[in-house]
Amino acid sequence: MTETTTDDDARHREKMAKRKAVQDAEVASKRIEKGLLIVHTGPGKGKTTAALGLVLRMLGRGHRVGVVQFIKGAWDTGEARALKSFGDRIAWHALGEGFTWETQDKARDIAACRKAWDTAKALMADPGIRLLVLDELNIALRYDYLDLDAVLADLAARRPDLHVVVTGRNAKPALIEAADLVTEMGSVKHHFSAGVKAQEGIEF
Amino acid sequence: MTETTTDDDARHREKMAKRKAVQDAEVASKRIEKGLLIVHTGPGKGKTTAALGLVLRMLGRGHRVGVVQFIKGAWDTGEARALKSFGDRIAWHALGEGFTWETQDKARDIAACRKAWDTAKALMADPGIRLLVLDELNIALRYDYLDLDAVLADLAARRPDLHVVVTGRNAKPALIEAADLVTEMGSVKHHFSAGVKAQEGIEF
Repeated sequence: MTETTTDDDARHREKMAKRKAVQDAEVASKRIEKGLLIVHTGPGKGKTTAALGLVLRMLGRGHRVGVVQFIKGAWDTGEARALKSFGDRIAWHALGEGFTWETQDKARDIAACRKAWDTAKALMADPGIRLLVLDELNIALRYDYLDLDAVLADLAARRPDLHVVVTGRNAKPALIEAADLVTEMGSVKHHFSAGVKAQEGIEF
Repeated sequence: MTETTTDDDARHREKMAKRKAVQDAEVASKRIEKGLLIVHTGPGKGKTTAALGLVLRMLGRGHRVGVVQFIKGAWDTGEARALKSFGDRIAWHALGEGFTWETQDKARDIAACRKAWDTAKALMADPGIRLLVLDELNIALRYDYLDLDAVLADLAARRPDLHVVVTGRNAKPALIEAADLVTEMGSVKHHFSAGVKAQEGIEF
């Protein structure tokens, strides 16, 4: 090892030691533990899949998880099958009936969304549930199939240790305002533009 | 039901029928099936969790999946435990040794990244693997712990039906150029700013 390399190594160590001190101080400064209201929105991919990753993480920690699908319940998804292997630790409710342009029946869509919200409230009241995913709730709110104020009031009244993840494009500003953590999935590049079709295990 | 409501319902049906026609035509126009190179980057949360969601989806479809963690292998994560229940359908390799400011040893970090890349190549050569997650590979590339051109050449030479997901902030422009699908996770709001600490099942 040349002297230059040794100097370089020492500089790297010093720089990284400083960064670690900053990192440790930052971690130590956060003391609050609370159930988070998390929103995954934006036009890019990854909103539902990131929620599923959190489901997996929570299951791995030994907790129970609830999932309510507000829109695409009619889809036969790979993840639903995979999660079945976790038995009663996952409460999965696929209550939406496909996207609204599939049903073409507004009254039916509204009824399905209301039923889904009742299920969500029942899961919020279940003290065994640690994480609740409200998949595509933003779509139901966007079309005014559910009353935004009522939804926000129910979310605010949930027990303090319950984490909730809401997914879907076009999250309402009032929901973003109420949330603790909001990620906007931006589409930098999409294979559909290159004529690639939806594929098993990726899109469904 | 009043006449106005019926008109409204009819308009809704017509609008949704048109949208469905556009949607169906769009779906029909995509004919290519190929293994995608997917990149999850950006400062927001959800990069790794969205990759995990794809893992779950692929497992649900009955396929085998490979995961190589380039950086945070020393972490004891909930998801690793959850995925163990899928047995040999998941090949999980946690090869990174914590973030580089934890090790403070550049030579060790580089050696760990090279070993991780060799493992990634072995998994790419395994015809049973349908999806390969290269978690935090972007960090390894950003610090030049791996040669970008060599990594891109290996990715380009993979078999045509293998889906690969690369995660981590600051994806290199050449990787974005090579990718089929790129999502930028933007941080709209983060609970760490409000003094909330990293919590079990959410951050780890």
